[in-house]
Amino acid sequence: MIKGLLSVLVVLVAVTSVLGKPEKTPTTNKPEKKEKRIPQTLSRGWGDQLIWAQTYEEALFWSRSKNKPLLVIFHLDDCPHSQALKKAFAEDKEIQQLADEDFILLNLVYETTDKHLSPDGQYVPRIIFVDPSMTVRADITGRYANRMYAYEPSDIKLLLSNMQRAKKFLKTEL
Amino acid sequence: MIKGLLSVLVVLVAVTSVLGKPEKTPTTNKPEKKEKRIPQTLSRGWGDQLIWAQTYEEALFWSRSKNKPLLVIFHLDDCPHSQALKKAFAEDKEIQQLADEDFILLNLVYETTDKHLSPDGQYVPRIIFVDPSMTVRADITGRYANRMYAYEPSDIKLLLSNMQRAKKFLKTEL
Repeated sequence: MIKGLLSVLVVLVAVTSVLGKPEKTPTTNKPEKKEKRIPQTLSRGWGDQLIWAQTYEEALFWSRSKNKPLLVIFHLDDCPHSQALKKAFAEDKEIQQLADEDFILLNLVYETTDKHLSPDGQYVPRIIFVDPSMTVRADITGRYANRMYAYEPSDIKLLLSNMQRAKKFLKTEL
Repeated sequence: MIKGLLSVLVVLVAVTSVLGKPEKTPTTNKPEKKEKRIPQTLSRGWGDQLIWAQTYEEALFWSRSKNKPLLVIFHLDDCPHSQALKKAFAEDKEIQQLADEDFILLNLVYETTDKHLSPDGQYVPRIIFVDPSMTVRADITGRYANRMYAYEPSDIKLLLSNMQRAKKFLKTEL
């Protein structure tokens, strides 16, 4: 019986690992040399008209000095789940407007050294909110118990609601 | 006599501080809202055809895994010295080719938390080399004693020579 449960667990872990994994090796993040290259953008397609911080340090600085919550997106170019969420994020006008007006934005294809940004592990896609007080808002989660900061494209309105929450919480606290 | 020397020193420090300072407040790094924005690039004009890492963590990862030295450029969009060096860097074909083939590249408009990247202070423009062993090459300097990692556009061939040194040193060490 215990063996059976263990097997189920192993299968589950394997399935969820595959779901979040890039399909190719990390070296494919870098295009091959000599071909004509399109300049890389900081938005990486998550909203070309939005203003993106480049690094976590920069984002924290802007968050504190502008007193706006920080939204950090962890994703990978070759992860289909990230790509699907990106499309939904970039096409949702309410999200784009709220992001533009009330958030400091950062998207990363690489983990930072700050462990607070991975409260339940390092996986993609994952969206973490940080208060201008530099407190990671671990309480603002999506709907998946095993990956609390993951969102599917169908969760886009939950993400919008979480953004409103991050914004509201901040105001009532200060 | 000592007082006189001190005065000269103070004036020198004041002059060099002004030289490297951005002309506007940091908030001008962020364009005003609502105008049609040009998507920000990772190259920021230092070589649109080169592949740039986004963060220091990412750059270190690539440096180690590809066994290539890392070249980190600290600069500011509204610093005329940074802009002049950028032009010289982007237009020098030898530099661009060497950078493309043998270096991991990172340009930052914001300081990292790693104090090793500012051996003699935080100023712009400043170019620091890091070995794939993650050792900052504090020995590879420009020609200014008061700002050892600064380069002027006229120093572009010294920078090229330093890049060759960073590359050569690595090979003879391994």
